[in-house]
Amino acid sequence: MTTTDASNRQSTGGSKYTGPIIDTDVHETFTKWTDLVPYLKEPWRGLITNGAWQGTGNPHVHWAANGVNRGDSQPADGAPAGSNYELLREQILETYPITHAILTGQFMPAVMPMQFEFATALANAYNNFVSDHWLARDTRLRASIQLAPQDPQAAAREIDRLGPDPRFVQILLPIGQWSYGDPFYNPIFEAAARHNLVVAFHHTGAVESALGKGRYYIEWHINVPQGAMATLTSLVVNGIFDKFPTLRFCILESGYSWLPHLLWRMDQNYRSLHLEIPWVKQLPSKYILERVKFSTQPTEDTSVENWLRLHDMLGTDKLLVFATDYPHWDFDSPEESVPRALPADLRRKIFYDNAQELFGFQD
Amino acid sequence: MTTTDASNRQSTGGSKYTGPIIDTDVHETFTKWTDLVPYLKEPWRGLITNGAWQGTGNPHVHWAANGVNRGDSQPADGAPAGSNYELLREQILETYPITHAILTGQFMPAVMPMQFEFATALANAYNNFVSDHWLARDTRLRASIQLAPQDPQAAAREIDRLGPDPRFVQILLPIGQWSYGDPFYNPIFEAAARHNLVVAFHHTGAVESALGKGRYYIEWHINVPQGAMATLTSLVVNGIFDKFPTLRFCILESGYSWLPHLLWRMDQNYRSLHLEIPWVKQLPSKYILERVKFSTQPTEDTSVENWLRLHDMLGTDKLLVFATDYPHWDFDSPEESVPRALPADLRRKIFYDNAQELFGFQD
Repeated sequence: MTTTDASNRQSTGGSKYTGPIIDTDVHETFTKWTDLVPYLKEPWRGLITNGAWQGTGNPHVHWAANGVNRGDSQPADGAPAGSNYELLREQILETYPITHAILTGQFMPAVMPMQFEFATALANAYNNFVSDHWLARDTRLRASIQLAPQDPQAAAREIDRLGPDPRFVQILLPIGQWSYGDPFYNPIFEAAARHNLVVAFHHTGAVESALGKGRYYIEWHINVPQGAMATLTSLVVNGIFDKFPTLRFCILESGYSWLPHLLWRMDQNYRSLHLEIPWVKQLPSKYILERVKFSTQPTEDTSVENWLRLHDMLGTDKLLVFATDYPHWDFDSPEESVPRALPADLRRKIFYDNAQELFGFQD
Repeated sequence: MTTTDASNRQSTGGSKYTGPIIDTDVHETFTKWTDLVPYLKEPWRGLITNGAWQGTGNPHVHWAANGVNRGDSQPADGAPAGSNYELLREQILETYPITHAILTGQFMPAVMPMQFEFATALANAYNNFVSDHWLARDTRLRASIQLAPQDPQAAAREIDRLGPDPRFVQILLPIGQWSYGDPFYNPIFEAAARHNLVVAFHHTGAVESALGKGRYYIEWHINVPQGAMATLTSLVVNGIFDKFPTLRFCILESGYSWLPHLLWRMDQNYRSLHLEIPWVKQLPSKYILERVKFSTQPTEDTSVENWLRLHDMLGTDKLLVFATDYPHWDFDSPEESVPRALPADLRRKIFYDNAQELFGFQD
């Protein structure tokens, strides 16, 4: 109701109302979420006191005090985990015999709801920041070209800009709600192929399962590999492996023990239904086993015998590449994650040879 | 514009327009999709001539001439595949030594966009139809109670109505977009527990992957197990196994070779993040290995050695129950789907013992 309307109503006569009033909509609030702490029992109280739930964002919360990060990875000055070169050097490069570390970032304008042009500008700016603040400081570091794939032509231009720089060894495509086999992403793969860059995929907070995000962080986290599985299916059925025969791929942080299942199921379906996708010229498993690597982190809770059974099922020891996922909470230490009882040559392939071959690093 | 308006406009004077006219919106159509056949090349022409694409429904098509059904399963009178008892008896009950066949239907009001009350009425009507037209004709047949789980209280009433009938041995919950761990489905599980009914899950056309339905039938079909994986996760994290300690479950037609991965990943996450779900009292793998069965169909294209490796990884030979999926195109014959070279006692467990124990059938 406007002021004018109100004035008109007053002017229609009658006396001022002086009786009791019921206001049926008044919005009180509290000052901060922690005002609710005295009124909660555990475990809900802890969700707020440890800062895990801040009333926004995902439907679930991070229960650990440091959220998704390793407790010791935050710099003493309060800067974000993973933002300090000296600490990263101390905690991984100097602690383990790491010859090359591939920076994958955690700033992905692909997942931000924003204008396409601004997303592209942010991705390009971040790549320049990485060049100046990270790559320039340590020759062991290599980087991923971050992209805003929602504008594939702009993403291709960014790949063409940085592709000649040998310190950028891969492009990084975030896994969320995007089916990268869809034709409008082809310019990105064309550009990666022009510069012989690895195409890496990494999940983001935007990834969901077949049933959505779920209500718990553990639920979301258990289901994260479904995004990688569906991405591989999308690449295969849309013929990306055929259209770009030189491209190599790497699936990061999505596991690998689901791979025997997916390869068997893909091949079985291909044998029955290949008429639907005549542009796919061979069994899906053949493309994947030849041209896709999988990072080990997060290694799963299973035995040495099962590691070996998985390798026997896959029929190759060239698939896995090691990763720590520093500085995140489920960091994999080279000393504990890959079982010591595995054969020495398999451990060497996982820790070094397979990635060395993927990226073409010279010894 | 109304007639009245038009009349008014005519009446404002001037002469009738006699010059040329451009009509910028006229909707022509064709008589039937096959009118486009002469204008298409293969493989697109075949999509229409074989009836695979009818211009409606899912984003993908069934390429086989009989759609999702076995070519020989349609009755001679043109009735739908799976609708004729005599043909079903001949094609499976008399062809193989099947002592019990669990009817799972393909009519699921859960996936129909309709009023809750009508969906419930349809489910109840279908259950009565199954009782009269199927169960009454052959004592080898057992049935699933079809439900409209979108109204959990009504579904529970239907379970209470049919639960005392020993011919109904399970309830069937369709996998689509529903997270059955969510508390509002609890009345369904309570009712199933009251009547000691198995809770079976089966995917529907509504199931999607982490990246949606995809554009191809093969893509959708490869990714179907993601619905079952996410359903198991939902049941675990929401404490359904703890709330209903006597309930047993069965996952139908979603595979099982992904299970080692899912169990390892669930247990690893539980060890790190169990604080978030304090109502879950033990490792997820323990619940699943003790209380969930998995139907074999569709068996995957893999070797006897890999069947045995999978069983070694799971540490039990009590998980798998046999299924044909009659009358669907990817029908599993008892003579070919479970490898003959598997140990005799394992084949016996898969073909009979495990399901006999699950449903409590008396020999």
